[in-house]
Amino acid sequence: MITEHPLLLVLDLTGTFAFALNGALTAVRAANLDIIGVVTLGMITALGGGIVRDIIIDDLPPATFTDWRYLAVAAGGSLLAFLLGRRLERLSVPITVLDAVGLSVFAVTGAGKAVVLGLGPAQAVILGAVTGVGGGTLRDVLTQRIPIVLRSELYAIPALAGATVTVISIRLGVDGVPAAVGAAAVCFLIRMLGVRFDLNAPRPPGEDGDDQVG
Amino acid sequence: MITEHPLLLVLDLTGTFAFALNGALTAVRAANLDIIGVVTLGMITALGGGIVRDIIIDDLPPATFTDWRYLAVAAGGSLLAFLLGRRLERLSVPITVLDAVGLSVFAVTGAGKAVVLGLGPAQAVILGAVTGVGGGTLRDVLTQRIPIVLRSELYAIPALAGATVTVISIRLGVDGVPAAVGAAAVCFLIRMLGVRFDLNAPRPPGEDGDDQVG
Amino acid sequence: MITEHPLLLVLDLTGTFAFALNGALTAVRAANLDIIGVVTLGMITALGGGIVRDIIIDDLPPATFTDWRYLAVAAGGSLLAFLLGRRLERLSVPITVLDAVGLSVFAVTGAGKAVVLGLGPAQAVILGAVTGVGGGTLRDVLTQRIPIVLRSELYAIPALAGATVTVISIRLGVDGVPAAVGAAAVCFLIRMLGVRFDLNAPRPPGEDGDDQVG
Repeated sequence: MITEHPLLLVLDLTGTFAFALNGALTAVRAANLDIIGVVTLGMITALGGGIVRDIIIDDLPPATFTDWRYLAVAAGGSLLAFLLGRRLERLSVPITVLDAVGLSVFAVTGAGKAVVLGLGPAQAVILGAVTGVGGGTLRDVLTQRIPIVLRSELYAIPALAGATVTVISIRLGVDGVPAAVGAAAVCFLIRMLGVRFDLNAPRPPGEDGDDQVG
Repeated sequence: MITEHPLLLVLDLTGTFAFALNGALTAVRAANLDIIGVVTLGMITALGGGIVRDIIIDDLPPATFTDWRYLAVAAGGSLLAFLLGRRLERLSVPITVLDAVGLSVFAVTGAGKAVVLGLGPAQAVILGAVTGVGGGTLRDVLTQRIPIVLRSELYAIPALAGATVTVISIRLGVDGVPAAVGAAAVCFLIRMLGVRFDLNAPRPPGEDGDDQVG
Repeated sequence: MITEHPLLLVLDLTGTFAFALNGALTAVRAANLDIIGVVTLGMITALGGGIVRDIIIDDLPPATFTDWRYLAVAAGGSLLAFLLGRRLERLSVPITVLDAVGLSVFAVTGAGKAVVLGLGPAQAVILGAVTGVGGGTLRDVLTQRIPIVLRSELYAIPALAGATVTVISIRLGVDGVPAAVGAAAVCFLIRMLGVRFDLNAPRPPGEDGDDQVG
């Protein structure tokens, strides 16, 4: 597996940890959730994208579920968020950065895994994005929110970009760790630019007043 | 696969296109969704039912996901809805008709595929209905609405009827394209009658005032 | 399969029936749902946990879906709830007890099945809990509620406890019906104590006023 290289594994686990922190913090903010709810949401955020990907590509039981390191890191990040609770909110900048790391690594390793298992390039790009945004989508559905990927933030586009670079580089025979890190960097930069300048993807035409005209 | 006959393939792709339009339009109405959200919702509406069916019958990766024609038609319908936006709402009648075509074809091909893969008749009927209503259900969950199949419109019953006719005709040895088209026509007619006369399935007893009595 | 013993099968079907009643009643209360919505929600509540478990452990098509007895019991319980409707609410105590039976049996048989299929102990415990709470979670997502397992009631902890006892007893070689019934009893007792004394799992620190201080 592409994540078996130590550097990619470290990045992948970092992403898992960041997603767990992020998901569990969402649960803490949503109040009324007990420790089980907080840890469950954290773990679903961290592991959900990989599980959905593995169901679709038929690599079951899911790798992130059977590998104890992912379970342990996801549970640890969730518990930490539960214990520190609202104090972590001061750390919103580093958490956003870590979350972007997770998005980037998951998009790249997800797309890479899909290519390795023989899926076509469009499918691999979609699955890379699904791996990156799937966990957060499950978290949002369970906490009664429109998933972030459907809403205003520039979230899916960087994941699609990182996955596309991954698929192209594998096609060109430039795989391995440097290509994966480069693809993740593309995703990370776009995501960070989106956060920094509050960029959004285009909206449907005619949303502001066009109705009367058109 | 039963949909490999050109006529059924055309119907199946028509249904995919209709579901994509419909799902993407829902996203446009729900506002606040960008192009990614609109296209994502359209594609999930179009492909979700088949993906859920293929997960349950263990035919992975899902056929509608690996076949580029389905992906292309679903993406095209979603993009069209994004570009035309609210102007498409004037076309609500043809869109409702196309949506009923999708429901009918998906119910029939879903049930047929389940029979071919060896599931029992009750399971095949349920899976046909799941194929027909699954995509719309995912769309509704993601946009924070009670799924249409659970609510007031006569939506699941035509799908169950079309799937039942399919299973019976296969059992009687009357399979092939004419039987499939006939079963789809049964579903389509019931759905259209339901829309035309605003029919609903029965409600639980005692919903209006019975509470004080019973 | 562990549930092939007559006593465990009876318990498993009892749990299925209780979950179907419970899920369908939820739908009746949520109003605006017709017979299809009520029966669909009842069946999803009863069968959903087992289906999610079987997807993750790759035992497809799902056992509870292919076995007609589970389908029949789930459909029967759901129809009964539809017909009796709000009158069943007087029976809330026996329904809560039956629901706890379902939670207990599903947690135990779910964990047992995961061990038999070769998953590690932590994974088996999680899958046992998923089997117990999965159906209710799907029900809550479809009816626009934060899933009960994430909210205040002591619901996941008894399932985790029952699954843990199951995994330990299998490891110690003490499997078979008595061990399974004992593990289910542990889950059942904790759940009933939680209901009786309105116990909740711990909340995140700093939820009441700590914000100003910390």
